[in-house]
Amino acid sequence: MEIALDAMGGDHAPGPIVAGALKALELDPELRVTLVGDQAAIMPFLGETVPARVTIFHCTQVIGMDESPAAGFRRKPDNSIARCWQLLAQSKVGGIVSAGNTGAMVAGGLFSRRFLRHIDRPGIATVMPTLRGPSIMLDVGANVNPKAEQLFHYGVMGEIYARLMLNKAKPTIGLMNVGSEEGKGNELIKATQNLFNNSPLRGNYIGNIEGRDIHQGVADVIVTDGFVGNVVLKVCEGLFDFMIKMVGNELSQTLVNEKDLAKKALQTLISRYDYSAFGGAPLLGIDGICIISHGSSGERAIANALALAAQLARAGINNQIVQELDQLPALLSANQSAN
Amino acid sequence: MEIALDAMGGDHAPGPIVAGALKALELDPELRVTLVGDQAAIMPFLGETVPARVTIFHCTQVIGMDESPAAGFRRKPDNSIARCWQLLAQSKVGGIVSAGNTGAMVAGGLFSRRFLRHIDRPGIATVMPTLRGPSIMLDVGANVNPKAEQLFHYGVMGEIYARLMLNKAKPTIGLMNVGSEEGKGNELIKATQNLFNNSPLRGNYIGNIEGRDIHQGVADVIVTDGFVGNVVLKVCEGLFDFMIKMVGNELSQTLVNEKDLAKKALQTLISRYDYSAFGGAPLLGIDGICIISHGSSGERAIANALALAAQLARAGINNQIVQELDQLPALLSANQSAN
Repeated sequence: MEIALDAMGGDHAPGPIVAGALKALELDPELRVTLVGDQAAIMPFLGETVPARVTIFHCTQVIGMDESPAAGFRRKPDNSIARCWQLLAQSKVGGIVSAGNTGAMVAGGLFSRRFLRHIDRPGIATVMPTLRGPSIMLDVGANVNPKAEQLFHYGVMGEIYARLMLNKAKPTIGLMNVGSEEGKGNELIKATQNLFNNSPLRGNYIGNIEGRDIHQGVADVIVTDGFVGNVVLKVCEGLFDFMIKMVGNELSQTLVNEKDLAKKALQTLISRYDYSAFGGAPLLGIDGICIISHGSSGERAIANALALAAQLARAGINNQIVQELDQLPALLSANQSAN
Repeated sequence: MEIALDAMGGDHAPGPIVAGALKALELDPELRVTLVGDQAAIMPFLGETVPARVTIFHCTQVIGMDESPAAGFRRKPDNSIARCWQLLAQSKVGGIVSAGNTGAMVAGGLFSRRFLRHIDRPGIATVMPTLRGPSIMLDVGANVNPKAEQLFHYGVMGEIYARLMLNKAKPTIGLMNVGSEEGKGNELIKATQNLFNNSPLRGNYIGNIEGRDIHQGVADVIVTDGFVGNVVLKVCEGLFDFMIKMVGNELSQTLVNEKDLAKKALQTLISRYDYSAFGGAPLLGIDGICIISHGSSGERAIANALALAAQLARAGINNQIVQELDQLPALLSANQSAN
């Protein structure tokens, strides 16, 4: 199992990125990692020699975290993200991981057009904490203007991902909307409802869910367009920080002798729900494994991201997706003529 | 100042709704309230006689909280929300307040077509708590498929509302997007950016903001479409509840002698940031004042909503909006030809 890791991607690269790779290698004896980036910048974090199961793929450029992806790819042909995608396209690796510029990772995938059969726009699937354990939400930013069929495909892929990640035999799927009743929402939503209701997934599909249902854990898989999903994800990050600060202030004003214990409790909560600690979010629909990690990823997040990539590759998630999609057109048209 | 109050709207109507009206009347000697609803249901909460400055407008029907607004209006012509809008249309009241079915309140406004000059779709403006004090977000659900010009108008109206509500001389305006750079987002967003950049509001406009900026208080006014705004608002409600529960659990497992103090601290936080406690959200763009309150509104929220309606009416918010919009077309075209 060979994974390419963008050693230059992330707020703190390359130090914690390389450290994360070493940690992942320690935990998984079958894993091999290609570190993609500036050899001179990477080497100091590897010790005196390149460790076993590590390869360095040297490249000279990096797309900045806030750089326009299109401009970055144009101006910097030797950037680390493009090189990762190239290694995947040449089947030299089974997966790629980056904590760098998310837009550039998605753009690299779109340029490569290395999509699974039936998929014309990949989507990013993230894990959301809820009162009933984690849920999967997708898309959270790869596709801000999706068609109904693409949203439906996100449901198909999300359901398979949820089976693997959440260990659920039959994950439920909810469609993000502004109300729970059928008929609510815009035209895109209505067309997507129709596809779910007439598909083999209709047994998983629980219909519309609203924003407040997410953290209740009402659905295992939350399907939404990349604009809404991205805003929601970031709103959650921001509100989480806001709440921790406000709760911390309030407790430090109210408690007398147990302020330190309260701090510890909040710290536990932060580490449990830290959105950056899930390792990363797969870009589903790519022929290969592509994991997009949070820009603030440290050693632990990168090690988790590499482990996630290996896990998804070994589980054959893409074969499962393609098999399910292969069966859909016939079933869909059969359903439509029956209705 | 006469305000019509939907006495039948809300999860707990009519008891706390009527109580809220009485409280508002006590606090504002110039206020008069028309209670719209079933006289027999309302009377028990008024005491033996109808108090001074209270009128009852009897009607026999109620649109349920989860009922389809269109079906509700069709099947129940004598519903309390329709009667409120009728009183406004006949200029018998200067404003209306309801904690009932939000969709029905919006639909009533759309049916009435009692819009301010230049406005073709009203928008709901809500208050969001942030680290730097409250911000205004609109639209949060009236218009799930807006045009760029409508989003721009939400900016104009939100800026005036923010001047009144937040007491800021020059509120900043941010456009909700999936990234902070110009050029990010879908076509709607790009067209809206263009309108702001070429308008007299360009000095207030700070460009794109992301989901995580909201609770940082980066913008005083957050402009977004009703689909995204509605999802965000409800996600915030849900995540707030989730966090309070998780923090409460963690503290009760960690603290020893000061659990009750911690509970008190969380309770303080809940009452300070309770989304239902802001009274209500104005539907801006209506010729008249229309306040939509949270379904769970109790006495305090209703009293606040009536006070808000009276405040906005007295401040002449609609005159200010129309005056600003009157000047826009000339300025906009002047700017466009100058560029």
